[in-house]
Amino acid sequence: MEVKEYLSHIAYDSVIFGFSGNKLKILIMKYHNTGFFALPGGFVRLDEDLNTAVRRGLKERTGLDNIYLEQFYTFGDVARFQPGVMKTILEANGHDVAENHWMLDRFISIAYYALINYDKVVPTPDALSDSCDWYALDKLPPLMQDHQQIVEKALQTLRDNLERKLVGVNLLPPLFTMNELQKVYEAILGEKLRRTTFQRKMLSLNFLQRHDKQYSGKAHKAPFLYSFKQEGVE
Amino acid sequence: MEVKEYLSHIAYDSVIFGFSGNKLKILIMKYHNTGFFALPGGFVRLDEDLNTAVRRGLKERTGLDNIYLEQFYTFGDVARFQPGVMKTILEANGHDVAENHWMLDRFISIAYYALINYDKVVPTPDALSDSCDWYALDKLPPLMQDHQQIVEKALQTLRDNLERKLVGVNLLPPLFTMNELQKVYEAILGEKLRRTTFQRKMLSLNFLQRHDKQYSGKAHKAPFLYSFKQEGVE
Repeated sequence: MEVKEYLSHIAYDSVIFGFSGNKLKILIMKYHNTGFFALPGGFVRLDEDLNTAVRRGLKERTGLDNIYLEQFYTFGDVARFQPGVMKTILEANGHDVAENHWMLDRFISIAYYALINYDKVVPTPDALSDSCDWYALDKLPPLMQDHQQIVEKALQTLRDNLERKLVGVNLLPPLFTMNELQKVYEAILGEKLRRTTFQRKMLSLNFLQRHDKQYSGKAHKAPFLYSFKQEGVE
Repeated sequence: MEVKEYLSHIAYDSVIFGFSGNKLKILIMKYHNTGFFALPGGFVRLDEDLNTAVRRGLKERTGLDNIYLEQFYTFGDVARFQPGVMKTILEANGHDVAENHWMLDRFISIAYYALINYDKVVPTPDALSDSCDWYALDKLPPLMQDHQQIVEKALQTLRDNLERKLVGVNLLPPLFTMNELQKVYEAILGEKLRRTTFQRKMLSLNFLQRHDKQYSGKAHKAPFLYSFKQEGVE
């Protein structure tokens, strides 16, 4: 009998957002020899807090600590139960899988989204996968199980939170232009915004710090740089 | 060996809000012969969707179908693991509990809040409890485990959602006065609001339908009655 190391029936999945080339992107794993694409996820050790398990997994996939992370929904439909899919993945990795293997059980999945600075990430596959790569949201491969639904719910949550959380803090470098900030909002909302309206609104919210332009021959043409007044605000 | 009927390690808890006497109240269970107070909760059958399990439990406790229900957080800290508490509850109910009984395992809990019309509920205890009663939020008994924390997070979520969801729809009868609606908002926010400001804001949101006063000798003194234009939104 296998030694029990993880809580049975419980998994987590992470929708890890980054921003690059004016597009919102997420990290996707591809499993060895199967053609299956999936969100990065994992299991919870018997003696481990759920949130700790998720941060451990994120660190393994991205190399980053202290990521902005938010739990947004727990998916628990019976329809998620597809033991054949997991069996295929395990067997494609050379595992001999017993019918009662714990990974073939029914799982609920607690879903999180993370916001990270794209440039700082080193995407890293796990033992079962041969790639962990960025995909633009509008060019995702077909995802296994209900992972497409998880992505959509993550994006909807991000949109709902846009008004009351400083989403951009975590997706942009410390200094950015108003135009860059606008591109982030447009990528999340999936629509173009009017430049003047956007700028007026952002400035009225009073969370941006404007910095002096540094002198150069063309300084007067350079855009202002901004930073967020508080960092890491939820 | 016991026959497995429920998913191990997985529970749910419900914060069921009602509004009465100008106060926000929730349903609390008291377990037989223990002095333990807890949120209504339960387990998920092996062949049952998570959300279905929660609705089944809500129906058992309240008699109501079609309740407004929203999942808001999954609690998964190791510190929740208190096998002694559950053992005490089971033994106080005359059960002889083996050390490896599945209810003594570590559980994560998926938490939901529900908004219901107070007057329509018949609170009903379960097999392990001798009461299921309304308690005002500011007069809760000490709750077991992390249930106080679950209540606080539910209330915070309700406040966060107040702007974008028609919370009042589910806590008020079909016809209500502006004053009654204001009392609901005040109970949720935990603060007094200015009548004129509140009324102006509510009317500007354009989701209220004003109804003609019915004629009576004192009709000119009666307040207008309102209803929500859409029922059961989200």
